[in-house]
Amino acid sequence: MRNAGFTNFSTDKDTSAEEHGDMTINKCDLLVIGGGPGGYTAAIRAAQKGLQIILVERGPLGGTCLNRGCVPTKTLLEDTFMISRVRNCHFMRGDMKINLKRIAGHKDLVVEGSCSWVQNLLAENGVTLLRGEASFSGPKTVTIKRQGGELEEVTAPKIILATGAVTIYDAGLHADGERIWSTDDALSVKSIPRSLAVIGAGNRGVEFASIYHNLGTKVVIIEKEKRILPRMYWELADRYKRTLLDRQIKVLTHTTVLAAHPSNGNGVILTLETAKGRQEVRVDRVLMTGVRRPAYHGINFEATDLVSSDGILEYGPNLETKVKGIYVVGDAAGPPYLAHKAIVQGMMAVNHILGKDTAQQPLFYPNCVYGNPEVATVGLTEDEALESGRSTKVGEFHFIGNGRSGTIGNDQGLVMIVSDSKTMEVLGVHMIGPQVTELISLACLAMQNGIDVSGIKKTVFAHPTLAETFFEAALATDGEAIHLIIND
Amino acid sequence: MRNAGFTNFSTDKDTSAEEHGDMTINKCDLLVIGGGPGGYTAAIRAAQKGLQIILVERGPLGGTCLNRGCVPTKTLLEDTFMISRVRNCHFMRGDMKINLKRIAGHKDLVVEGSCSWVQNLLAENGVTLLRGEASFSGPKTVTIKRQGGELEEVTAPKIILATGAVTIYDAGLHADGERIWSTDDALSVKSIPRSLAVIGAGNRGVEFASIYHNLGTKVVIIEKEKRILPRMYWELADRYKRTLLDRQIKVLTHTTVLAAHPSNGNGVILTLETAKGRQEVRVDRVLMTGVRRPAYHGINFEATDLVSSDGILEYGPNLETKVKGIYVVGDAAGPPYLAHKAIVQGMMAVNHILGKDTAQQPLFYPNCVYGNPEVATVGLTEDEALESGRSTKVGEFHFIGNGRSGTIGNDQGLVMIVSDSKTMEVLGVHMIGPQVTELISLACLAMQNGIDVSGIKKTVFAHPTLAETFFEAALATDGEAIHLIIND
Repeated sequence: MRNAGFTNFSTDKDTSAEEHGDMTINKCDLLVIGGGPGGYTAAIRAAQKGLQIILVERGPLGGTCLNRGCVPTKTLLEDTFMISRVRNCHFMRGDMKINLKRIAGHKDLVVEGSCSWVQNLLAENGVTLLRGEASFSGPKTVTIKRQGGELEEVTAPKIILATGAVTIYDAGLHADGERIWSTDDALSVKSIPRSLAVIGAGNRGVEFASIYHNLGTKVVIIEKEKRILPRMYWELADRYKRTLLDRQIKVLTHTTVLAAHPSNGNGVILTLETAKGRQEVRVDRVLMTGVRRPAYHGINFEATDLVSSDGILEYGPNLETKVKGIYVVGDAAGPPYLAHKAIVQGMMAVNHILGKDTAQQPLFYPNCVYGNPEVATVGLTEDEALESGRSTKVGEFHFIGNGRSGTIGNDQGLVMIVSDSKTMEVLGVHMIGPQVTELISLACLAMQNGIDVSGIKKTVFAHPTLAETFFEAALATDGEAIHLIIND
Repeated sequence: MRNAGFTNFSTDKDTSAEEHGDMTINKCDLLVIGGGPGGYTAAIRAAQKGLQIILVERGPLGGTCLNRGCVPTKTLLEDTFMISRVRNCHFMRGDMKINLKRIAGHKDLVVEGSCSWVQNLLAENGVTLLRGEASFSGPKTVTIKRQGGELEEVTAPKIILATGAVTIYDAGLHADGERIWSTDDALSVKSIPRSLAVIGAGNRGVEFASIYHNLGTKVVIIEKEKRILPRMYWELADRYKRTLLDRQIKVLTHTTVLAAHPSNGNGVILTLETAKGRQEVRVDRVLMTGVRRPAYHGINFEATDLVSSDGILEYGPNLETKVKGIYVVGDAAGPPYLAHKAIVQGMMAVNHILGKDTAQQPLFYPNCVYGNPEVATVGLTEDEALESGRSTKVGEFHFIGNGRSGTIGNDQGLVMIVSDSKTMEVLGVHMIGPQVTELISLACLAMQNGIDVSGIKKTVFAHPTLAETFFEAALATDGEAIHLIIND
């Protein structure tokens, strides 16, 4: 038997719609509000299992991930990194002209392609897509204001809220799209500023810093915490900072923005509070990366009995809220704001709806930073493991001892495996270097399935591959790494 | 506790050497003959465990892998692929000049760096390195002819033969280094021929075809079997062939070379026997890729009781030959000729020497082709699984449905997981596409540790990553892939 997709696909699961006066009344098994990775995954999975689904989306399909997050940023990172590689290439010389319109166009093309891919997926799986704004008008009834203004009503015994998150710009500045940018403004890459201040050195901050640095912009990163990548393992963050400094990207930590004023000409003067006192910085453009918060705008929780706490809906291990039959998944369920968390939660909610209690704890969510180098981490750091009462071993291997790294000319970074020194259980894996956003899946696969350090050690890894660093880090746990000379 | 290397490193394990007349007599716990991945891995591992080691090498350290195989070919593939990417880049335009000397120089630098890394590893682990030719002069005694001509003798209770393999050029032509090349000649990249015939479409053949195609050479591949990559899963081979044809690389299968004659000017006329009869092809240069055979040249098996069969030493599951205490590992132990097999066997032999019977069956050895696309495979194909009496399911996912592929502009290829339809056991995984030489490690880790399809399905894979194709292929096994529309 060979399955390439739709063996469970049934064609007779149209939702029912009746006209009641001016209002169309729709019924379905499951209503999904929001068409990002959490929502569309839930809709497709439920449709594969034979449910009748309506998915409501007020904006473009794909949510933050496809339109304003993962997909456009990674496309820009790749294309601009190509420019940086050509600029630094030692065996090619010449004058290359960058066509910024084509770079922006390529990014738009990839985004549009991804969105229409999702639209086709929904259609092929028989999901009914309603474009419009959803608002609860009863405990299990939602009114949809269609894009033309007409209203429709959907009643469903099960509802999944996948309304995503919004970015809150907390730096006290107003994004005007000209001198002061939101991340959406930065994605449009209409011009290459001579200088850019990036406020916030989380994952998005350092990725945007890389994009504009690759384009030739002089970049300064401003972070109020004492470290960049404050939610990452400090050792990776410190190494990352060094690579930024090596590339002449300025990093100001422990620094807050007090004010922004237009400078003469076309730029901005930022007044900063640093550890050493006040300071002024003049830049062409300012990018605020902000913080993420669940987006429930217009959803009208009052019509049902949903309960939120600290601005986040309350829910149980199967993503079911306090209202039986109503689920919340993805960014709408609060941090971590990760597309793969949304995908997993979309599947979990549907499993529960189908009567399978698949709440599985713990789920190991990796966290990745893209660019050059990449950073990826999953599970506990050594400090966290020690704090939780474990005795630990750390096996560490540096890319400089890896053959494949040499051949691709990218040999900086390391892989660390934190394990329990008594049981050999893998507690956490932390990586910085080439392709580690891919390599981290080895750690996820091992940890989710209880493969311990000895299980990694007994595996044959192809040579020459970057994945061998994971093998050697496991060997290093017991002082058995082969290609390791020094700590770099 | 934190291990980054050498916790078991002891400094007092010098081998003993005595002068006996003209001859230095050395004694050690373990003599390793050959300094490629199998030999140096065995030496380092044994030294880590406290043994006194002598390693003999007649050529440069690192064997085929570092000097004439993996490392130089992958470096050339990467650098020349960069040229191809710039040539086809849609957002950069200009005149770029290729500096071939620098490409060759970079390759030499990476090779030399790798070799000196190994030399340092041996030194830091306290392995005594003897440069010279080894030849048995007694059952457990080996005479070393040093590079200066002087003789030394080594007696050891344990001996590991890691003498590697040689390439046999079976196409009936003589490599002259000018018009007719060996793979060593092709690695020197002294010039870019206008046209090149590559005889043999195994892994090395298609990799060299890619290298010269990337440099701008018109390439024709000649293969006597009915398919290119004859040891790969036919479906991957057929897809690979299509990508070659798309790039205007000519592929002649079922074709043997009858003769080669100098053409007017500087080229070669090849007379070919094809399925459609005789044919002549005129090219600038011819590259023979040959076949690999264990290299025992000069080793003088007659002085001991080693037994070979079909040109390959006989050995048991722990790599021990018919002579107790003498082991054979890596290419010297016959096919598959893979560096990672050598590394694993080097470790296995040392484990057995240390009294651990770690013979573990089956070991899953991945097989990789580098370049663009990459190909990687491990375990059984669907046909092989069916022939072995299994009932199978195949989960298949195409890169075109993967978000990360879109962002890197490389979305062709697929991942196939062959599993047992009753037990969900993963029997084999086959991939073609971007970075699959890295992704195959996920399959190796799963298969070696008995993670079945459900274990892959319950793992969280970071988004957006290429590794998600492995997840989706597992989902596709049960008709549950999310991002799959069509067979491409």
